[in-house]
Amino acid sequence: MEITLKAKIFDLEIGRYEATLNETDAKKLGVRPKDRIKLFSRGKSIVAVVNTTKTVIKAGEIGISADILKTMGVKESDDIIVAPTEKPKSVEYIRKKMQGVTLSEAEFESIVKDVVTGRLSEVEITAFVSAIYINGLNIDEAAYLSKKMAETGEILEIRKKPVFDKHSLGGVPGNKITLLVVPIVAAAGLAIPKTSSRAITSACGTADIMEVLAPVTFNASEIVEIVDRTNGIIAWGGGVNLAPADDIFIRVEYPLAIDPHYLALCSVMAKKYAVGADFVVIDLPMGSETKIPTMEDARKYARDFLELGERLDITVECAVTYGDKPIGRAVGPALEAKEGLKALEGEGPSSLIEKSTDIAGILLEAGGIATKGNGKQAAMEILKSGKALKKMKEIIEAQGGDPKVTSDYISVGRYKETIYSPMGGYVTHISNKAIVQVARAAGSPKSKGAGIHLYITKGTKVAKGEPLFDIYAESEWELEEASKLAKQLLPVRIEGMILKRFPEYTFIGER
Amino acid sequence: MEITLKAKIFDLEIGRYEATLNETDAKKLGVRPKDRIKLFSRGKSIVAVVNTTKTVIKAGEIGISADILKTMGVKESDDIIVAPTEKPKSVEYIRKKMQGVTLSEAEFESIVKDVVTGRLSEVEITAFVSAIYINGLNIDEAAYLSKKMAETGEILEIRKKPVFDKHSLGGVPGNKITLLVVPIVAAAGLAIPKTSSRAITSACGTADIMEVLAPVTFNASEIVEIVDRTNGIIAWGGGVNLAPADDIFIRVEYPLAIDPHYLALCSVMAKKYAVGADFVVIDLPMGSETKIPTMEDARKYARDFLELGERLDITVECAVTYGDKPIGRAVGPALEAKEGLKALEGEGPSSLIEKSTDIAGILLEAGGIATKGNGKQAAMEILKSGKALKKMKEIIEAQGGDPKVTSDYISVGRYKETIYSPMGGYVTHISNKAIVQVARAAGSPKSKGAGIHLYITKGTKVAKGEPLFDIYAESEWELEEASKLAKQLLPVRIEGMILKRFPEYTFIGER
Repeated sequence: MEITLKAKIFDLEIGRYEATLNETDAKKLGVRPKDRIKLFSRGKSIVAVVNTTKTVIKAGEIGISADILKTMGVKESDDIIVAPTEKPKSVEYIRKKMQGVTLSEAEFESIVKDVVTGRLSEVEITAFVSAIYINGLNIDEAAYLSKKMAETGEILEIRKKPVFDKHSLGGVPGNKITLLVVPIVAAAGLAIPKTSSRAITSACGTADIMEVLAPVTFNASEIVEIVDRTNGIIAWGGGVNLAPADDIFIRVEYPLAIDPHYLALCSVMAKKYAVGADFVVIDLPMGSETKIPTMEDARKYARDFLELGERLDITVECAVTYGDKPIGRAVGPALEAKEGLKALEGEGPSSLIEKSTDIAGILLEAGGIATKGNGKQAAMEILKSGKALKKMKEIIEAQGGDPKVTSDYISVGRYKETIYSPMGGYVTHISNKAIVQVARAAGSPKSKGAGIHLYITKGTKVAKGEPLFDIYAESEWELEEASKLAKQLLPVRIEGMILKRFPEYTFIGER
Repeated sequence: MEITLKAKIFDLEIGRYEATLNETDAKKLGVRPKDRIKLFSRGKSIVAVVNTTKTVIKAGEIGISADILKTMGVKESDDIIVAPTEKPKSVEYIRKKMQGVTLSEAEFESIVKDVVTGRLSEVEITAFVSAIYINGLNIDEAAYLSKKMAETGEILEIRKKPVFDKHSLGGVPGNKITLLVVPIVAAAGLAIPKTSSRAITSACGTADIMEVLAPVTFNASEIVEIVDRTNGIIAWGGGVNLAPADDIFIRVEYPLAIDPHYLALCSVMAKKYAVGADFVVIDLPMGSETKIPTMEDARKYARDFLELGERLDITVECAVTYGDKPIGRAVGPALEAKEGLKALEGEGPSSLIEKSTDIAGILLEAGGIATKGNGKQAAMEILKSGKALKKMKEIIEAQGGDPKVTSDYISVGRYKETIYSPMGGYVTHISNKAIVQVARAAGSPKSKGAGIHLYITKGTKVAKGEPLFDIYAESEWELEEASKLAKQLLPVRIEGMILKRFPEYTFIGER
C-alpha cells in the first residue's frame, strides 16, 4: 500500500522526523499515531513517525518538518510517495531495557543512533530514559552508552597530548572557577579544551559568563585550532555537536524533573570522551542544596566516575568540594566575569581562589607540572605571577574578544537595590536555591548585567542595617520582581549568638 | 509576568490541553517546552502544556487546540492572556512511582484526573505507564487505580440487580462467543450490559461484528435503557465514556508494543466497575500465540483478577480456555456475524458452541438460574430451544437493527480465493497470528465483508488439493495482497503421519 501526498511545511522544530497525515490518509495506509511511514521523493527516502489530524493537514497533503524537507531536498507542494514501514529495531531494545535485560554495545549503538537521527518518538525516548532511571545501568552499559553518545556526535582531535579537562556538577551558584582553572592550566603548557553549558535552571552557566568576555560559539575545527594556539578555550558546548543525544534525553528529563544518576554520569563522560580527554578532574560540590547532599552520595559518584573513566581510557580524579553556599561573592554573567577577571588580576574572594587553585593543582600534578602534593602551590604561583591573566587574555583574543579588557571595564545592570540586615548577628546560612531564584527573577542569565553581589559570607558578623547583598537588573520591573522575591525568600539567614532561648526564640530569616 | 496573544486554531486532536508559542514569546514568559501556562479569556482559565516553534505560530499568536477553544468558549483571533504556572502535583506522584514508592488512593486520583482532563504531557503519561510496567503495582494500588479510572468516566446505573458481565483476554481470532453468551444469559433473565472493543491489532473486535447486525454506539443512558428493556446489549465501549484513561494509556503502550500486566488488569476491572458489574467471568485463552502462554501465566492472571475483584466488590470467576487455534471457522466482521447467528439458529461449529455455553453456564450458575455444575447444560438448553435466538433478535431490534435478519441474509466480500492443501496429511497447527495478518490484509475489520473461512480445524485429515480456507475481500487488490501473504505465511500447517524421517524429513508448512 502506498499513496502520493503533497508536501506542506509543518514544523515544531522537534528535531525528529515526524510527518502529519490527515486521518483519512492514515486509515488508507493502515497506520496509527507513532507508527512509521517511509517517504520517497527525488530519489531519496526517509522514515518518519506518524501523527494524525482531522483538520490541520487536509486529505491528500502531508505535514512534514523543515528537517525532513532539508534532508530530502524537497519543496512545499512536491509530491511525496508514502508507504507504511516497520518500527526501528531500537524500540525492541528499549523494551528489553524496560524489562530489566542488560543491553549489548550494539543495542546501545542502535538506540543512540536512532535518538540522534530523529527516528524515535518522544514516547519511545521517554521510555528509555525512564527505564534507565528505574533500572539503572551496570558499568559496562554505562561505558557503551557514553561511547555511543560521543561517537554519534563530533570528536575533537586536539594535537597536543595528553588532553586535560574539568567538570563541576551543578547546584552551586557563582561557581566560576573555570575562568581561573583554564588559564592557569593552559599557562602551565597543558591542553584544556573546556566546553561549558548555558544556564537551564541555574542562575548562569560558564558559557553565559565567558560570553561577556568573548564569543563562545565555535565548531569542532575552530576549537581545535584555538587550543593548538593557546592551549585553552572556554567554549559553549552547544556550538559543537558533542554527544548530541544528551540534549535529547534532557528534553524528557526536564518535564519529569528527574536527573537519572547513570545518565548524568554518561552525559559528563561522553563529552569528555568526545573532546579526547586523557585526564579529567571532577568537582563534586557537596551540600544540602546540591546533587550531592552527603559524603555517601559523593563516594558513590566518585566511584562510578572512576570506574566509568577506566572503561573509557580516561583517568578521573574526583574532588569533593564545599557546596553549601555560593562560590565567591558574585552571581550573574557580567558580575561573575568581573569577579573572575579581578581574581586573575590579583584580587578576589578566598573561596574562589582557594577552590580554583585546588582544582587546577590536581591537573598540574597529573600533567607533571608539579609533584604530588605541590599542585595547588604551583597553581597559586601561576595565578599570582600574572601568567594566568596573560593566558586568559590570549584566550579571550583567540576567541574573538577584546584582550585589553579589565575587570573595571565590565559593566553590570544599571538598576540596583541593596538588601540590609534586619538585625545584628551572624550569617548562619546562605541558600543556593533562593540566590538562584532571585538572580533569575532579576533577569539572569538572559540579561547579562543582572545578578547578585554578596557583601557577606557564611559566618560573617553583621550589625543591624548593614548591607547583605545588592541585586542588579537591566530593567526596573525586573529589579522590583527580584527585590520582592528576595524579601519573601530571605536567601541570607542571620542569627544571634544565642541560638536557643525559649520561649521567645525564633528563627530569623527562615521561611 | 503575563502577555496577551491572539488565538490560532492549531489542532492535532491529541486530547490534551497543549498550547504552541512562538519561541520569542516563550522566552518572554520564561517557559520551556512541557512547562505549564495558564490561559485566561472570557472570564475562564485553563492550564496548558507548552510547545514552542520558530515558524508555525508567529510571535504574538498562540496555537491552541479545538479542545481548548471549546472549553474556554473563545474564537480564532480572540485575545488570550497567558502567564506561566506550576506543573500539576501529579507529576511529583508519577516521579514517586518511578522511584518505587507505593502510591496512595489520593495520589492515583490526582494522576488519573490529570490524565483524563488533558493536563499531563505525553512524556509524563509515558513515564507513568513505564513505571507501572517496570515496577508493577501492589493489589491496593491496582484497586485504587481501577476505581479512579472508572470514577473519572461514566458509571452505568443498571436498574436490574445483580449485574453480570464477561470479558475475554485477546489473542484468539474468531472468538465471537459474546454473540451467544449475551443472549443466552439475557434470555435467562439476568442483566448483562456488555461493552466491547473494536479491533486495534486483531482481525476484528466484537463491536466490529455486532455492527454488522445493528448499531453499536450508545451513550450511558441509552445502554441502561436497552438493558432495562431486554436484559442485554452488545455495545461499542468507545461510544460511552467508561474508564477513559484506558485509551490514553493505550496510546503510549502501542508504540512501545508493551502490555503492562497490571494496567491490563486495571483496564478490564475499571470497565467492569463502571458498568456496575457484581459478577464477572473472565475468559483466559491459553496458547502459544495469546497473552497467556502457560498454565502458570493463567494462574497468575486468575489470582490477580480474583484479588482485584475482591477489592472492588466484584465476584470474579476465571476460565482458562484453549487458545491455540481460532474459535469456530470464521474470522472477519460479516463472516463472524453470520457464523454467530447461524449457531443461534441451531447450527454451528462445536468449538464455538462448547465455549459459549461453558462461559454462559458459569454466569447462569452465579445468577442462580442453574445449580452448581449444571450451568452449561442450562445454557445449552436455552440455545437449543431458540430462546437465545429470540433474545438476540430483541437485542438487535433494541439497538436499532433489523430483527428479521437471518444468517443467510448476511452478505460477505464478493472477491474470494480458496487456498488448497499442497499435500495429504493432518492439520497439526493453525497460526492465530498468521490468520489475523491475512484477514487484515484482506481488509478486515474496515471492510465488513473481508475475512477468512476455514474448512478445517486442528487434527482434520486432508487430501492433497482439498480446500483449507477461503479468503474474502471487498476489492480485488486486497484479495491479491491477502492471498500473497497467505502463501508466504502458510497459516495452516499440514504434516504427514510420520513426523520424523531422517534425513528427508522437512516441516511442510513451516516458515
